[in-house]
Formats: sequence, C-alpha cells, structure tokens
Amino acid sequence: MGSHPPGLTWALIQEARARIAPHINLTPVLTSRTLDEESGARLYFKCENFQRGGAFKARGATNAVLSLADTELGRGVATHSSGNHAAAVARAARLKGVPAYIVMPQNTAAAKRAAVERLGASITLCEPTHAARERAAREVLETTGASMIHPYDDLRVMAGQATTAVELLEQVAELDVILCPVSGGGLLSGIAVAARALKPRIRIIGVEPEGADDAARSLAAGRIVPCERPDTIADGLRATLGERPFAEIRRHVDAIVTVSDAAIVTAMRHLWEVLKIIVEPSGATAYAAVSAARVAVRGERVGVIVSGGNLDLDSLPWIRRAPE
Amino acid sequence: MGSHPPGLTWALIQEARARIAPHINLTPVLTSRTLDEESGARLYFKCENFQRGGAFKARGATNAVLSLADTELGRGVATHSSGNHAAAVARAARLKGVPAYIVMPQNTAAAKRAAVERLGASITLCEPTHAARERAAREVLETTGASMIHPYDDLRVMAGQATTAVELLEQVAELDVILCPVSGGGLLSGIAVAARALKPRIRIIGVEPEGADDAARSLAAGRIVPCERPDTIADGLRATLGERPFAEIRRHVDAIVTVSDAAIVTAMRHLWEVLKIIVEPSGATAYAAVSAARVAVRGERVGVIVSGGNLDLDSLPWIRRAPE
Repeated sequence: MGSHPPGLTWALIQEARARIAPHINLTPVLTSRTLDEESGARLYFKCENFQRGGAFKARGATNAVLSLADTELGRGVATHSSGNHAAAVARAARLKGVPAYIVMPQNTAAAKRAAVERLGASITLCEPTHAARERAAREVLETTGASMIHPYDDLRVMAGQATTAVELLEQVAELDVILCPVSGGGLLSGIAVAARALKPRIRIIGVEPEGADDAARSLAAGRIVPCERPDTIADGLRATLGERPFAEIRRHVDAIVTVSDAAIVTAMRHLWEVLKIIVEPSGATAYAAVSAARVAVRGERVGVIVSGGNLDLDSLPWIRRAPE
Repeated sequence: MGSHPPGLTWALIQEARARIAPHINLTPVLTSRTLDEESGARLYFKCENFQRGGAFKARGATNAVLSLADTELGRGVATHSSGNHAAAVARAARLKGVPAYIVMPQNTAAAKRAAVERLGASITLCEPTHAARERAAREVLETTGASMIHPYDDLRVMAGQATTAVELLEQVAELDVILCPVSGGGLLSGIAVAARALKPRIRIIGVEPEGADDAARSLAAGRIVPCERPDTIADGLRATLGERPFAEIRRHVDAIVTVSDAAIVTAMRHLWEVLKIIVEPSGATAYAAVSAARVAVRGERVGVIVSGGNLDLDSLPWIRRAPE
C-alpha cells in the first residue's frame, strides 16, 4: 500500500450537503406496487429527474462553485460539457453572480445550447473531439483565469453528487443495495462513499451500457481502460471514468453490471408508463439492471438512482418518425 | 325555488375520505419556479397522474363500491366506460372480492381492455354508441343484479372525487383559485363542494376543450346542453355533463373556460418537459387555461388539477409517425 492521493471523505460530503441545501431540491423517492410485484423486490426510486435542471448534476456543480474563495470566484468558472453539467455550472455561477465559460462541441443539440445561453453563460464552440475540447478549455482558462469545474474528476463535484445517497438513506431506512448508473464516475463514487459511511454493509452496484463499459473493464483490469468508441443511446453515460472516482469505486463498489441499449429503452418506457415520470435513457439504466434481470435483488430493499429526465421529446426511441 | 334532489354535502365527502384513505394514494403537489415565472402566478399541481391506476377515478369508484351494503356487494358491480373509470371499478371490486361487469365499446384501445381484464372483470363489448352502451349496461344489470356505478352522475362517486380538493387544501394553505378539467362533472362538482366548504371565498374554475364545451354552454343556458359530436384530443373529456354534477356546478363554480386542442397539446408537452411527469391530454387541460392565458391568475396562488397520466406512448400528438 503506497501513498494515495487524498480521497473523498464523509466530512467533505457533510460540508457539501450543508453548502448546497438551500440551492437544490430534496428530491422525492417514488415506489410502485406494480414494479415491486414484477421484480419481487422493494424498489425505491430516488428521482433526480426532479432535481433543479432535471438532473443530479446540480449537486456537484453547485458544491464546487460555492467552494471557491471569493478571489477565485471573481474570475469566473469554466467547464467543457455538452450536457447537464454545463447548465448546472452556469446556474451555480449565476447564483454567485460570476461569469461562466462553457466549452461545447459544435454538434451540441440546439436546445441544450440555448438553455446554457439563457442562464447567462459564455459559450465557446469547438470540434466534437476530446482533444479539441481540452484545448479549447485550456485556452479559455488561460485567457480568463477562471476556475475549472470538471464534470466528475473533482472531489468537490463528487462530494456534491454524494448528497443524493445521504438523502436517500434518510428517506428510506434499511436499504440492502443501491443501483447507480456510471459514466465518469462522479455520482457512483460519491454515492458509494456516502452510503458506506452511513451503512457499512450496504451493497453498491454500478450499472453501465454494454456499449460504454469502461467501468466494468476498468474494475476488472485494476486500471482505467477507456472505451475507444462509446456507442449507447444513454448519452449521459459516454464519458470515460475519472481517476479520482475510480479510486473510490475500487474501494467501495461491489460490482459493475452492464445492460444493453434495448434493455435501457424498455426500462425507460416502463418507468414512463408505470411511474408516470419522464426519465432519460441514462436515468433508466440503473432500473434496467433490475428489469433485465442483470442483478439478483429478489426479496431485498433496493435503492434505484434515477439520474435525470432531460431528453428531446421529438425523438423517442420507440417511435419511428415520418420523414420531414 | 322548488324542491331540489339531495345534493353533495360536506358530510358525504368526509365519510368518503375516511372510507377510501387506506385504498388510494395521497398524491403529491408539485411546484416549479420556471412555470411560476412564466405565468406570474404560484402554481400548485395536484398530481392525480400518480393516483392508483394513473387517474383520479380511483377515488370515486372506490367510494361508491365500498359504500354498498354486503347484500348488494354480493351481486357485484357494473359500469360502462372505455377509460379510467372502468379500471377503477374493477380494482375496487377486486378489493372486496366481488364480480365487476364492464360494458365497453368495441373500439376501446386494446391496452385499456387488457388492463381491465387483468383486474379480473367480466367485459361485455357493445357498439360504440351511447344508446348501445346504455342498452348493454341495462341487460347486464338485469341478468346479474349487480349495482350500477355511474362514472360521474352519482353522489358517492362525486364525494370520492371531492377528496382531491380536501387533500390539496391541506397540502397548500391559502389558495385563491382552483382550476379543474370538466367532462361529466364528477371531479369538478366534487372539488367545488369540498373547496367551498373549506374556503368559502375560493374561486373554482372549470376548464374544457373547445370541441367538447357542453359545460360552458350548459352553465350559460341554465340547463344541460349536450355536444352533438364532441371532438377533442382530450379523450377523457368527451362525456356529457351529468344532472347531479351540474346542480353543484351551477351553485359553486365561478366560470367555465375553454381551451383549444392546440393549447392542450402545448400545455401537455410543456408539463412533460418542465415538471418531468407524464400527463395525458385531459390532465393538461386545466394548466392549458393558464399557459394559453384563458384565465387571469397573475399574482395568485393557483391549484391546478392534473387529472391523469394514462395514454398510448406510441402515439404522441407532436410526433408524426412513419407508416408501418
């Protein structure tokens, strides 16, 4: 055992919770006797689709931005993201009245770009490659002196996402296991550290799409193994696992299971029909592990993280649209 | 002022609440700062799409069935309905372990028919006309001796639906106005009587589609004026106002406003996007009166009844499907 970089601690999570509580929603936990009967388990859906901005990302971004010293804050904050994290950083910056600089790939959906613009952020467009994003972000940081808020490889962000599990374990006593989607790992690592601190014997299972299974492969290999070409309908789960999240996942996560895109779509539609809530593909991925029988949870009390509900309602995976 | 038939009373509503409480969901009230900013009002969405069976109908049907004497119950219950009321009666009958006889038009969606069959009800199909329905129901009643549970023209059903407002006014203090969709009038009349009993100065506004505006015309004429051919996307709002509901609506409802189908679809989609909940067209109709500016509620605290969330997810009004 050599020296480790500092990791996520329960103290950081408690600080995060106090810091962000006035600015985020305490999201509800939904249950359904239909889904319980089907699964043979008791399912508790932690609904981050009802979070501000429609996804859990508000937690981590708000904690990171509010953690900055005033001198740092004055120069603004920056990130690169095409999705929910960009809007979450823009919203947190607006809370503090400081500039937000967002690097977005040119092919970002117009609606997402407009949402970030409405929040008052400055947008820099770049080529839709990882290298171009990093380069554009570096230029923005050099020009502005803004503080980088990484979408997941950041302890402040991880601590914010961890508050999801703190709430869930206050709302539901005696969970046996928590199922959580994994992409960059900010949410899964945060939830794992928080849940273990509160309930040392709880099981934590990450769920990811078969077409973006870098977390499963990384856990097996003991080092981060990126996916060359992530290919999944779950657009929120295409990022590569970060170093800091991976360190916590290795320590605290019991297993990573994978689900097919078909299982994700089936799960998503079933949640719409039965729970009457809008869930995006990434948000249905944890439940897909139950509905597609990729986890053994019969007779157990299962926390299921519904991570978000932002998607283009004009384009649903189960409807083939007529040409324009 | 001649003699009136007995009407809906606060005592009946209180009895209904105690009777059905163990068998229905206390549904949540959702709020949204986005929708509040857009409307200039404070909107409180009473979410009956989260009710058992996905619609408020569980309240009235359960109250009516549980009100029957054991001798009546033994012969079963019957109704005619193509929609949520049929499933609600079937579910209530199953609670008591008695037969349910449901008359349905032949053109009822297969999914709705299957749902009622799964609940163990006996289904009688009939031609899709009002006369054929009534005739088939009469035959069923004569053959079986079952008790008729009318979808809305029944004080026990109205008292059950009224409990929606009792809950809402406990959940949200100081509402200025309640907006509620109107079809046969069971829900609107129940809500009006309950809300007036609790808050005599509250305003109650019914909302109906332009293509099924019999309530607006009836209120203006002082007698029930049926629509010859109701034509609206809101399939739950095509029934004709009942006598008993109309009597209460005349006494207690301040106004009926109408909204176009286009406004209903826009409102429905907006609720999906912002509140992240599945709402059927009928369920979005009350909110459509706000979003299409058919009511003046600026600066007020507004209860908005979201009556249900059951619809065919393969066929959304804003997506033109490719031919099979």
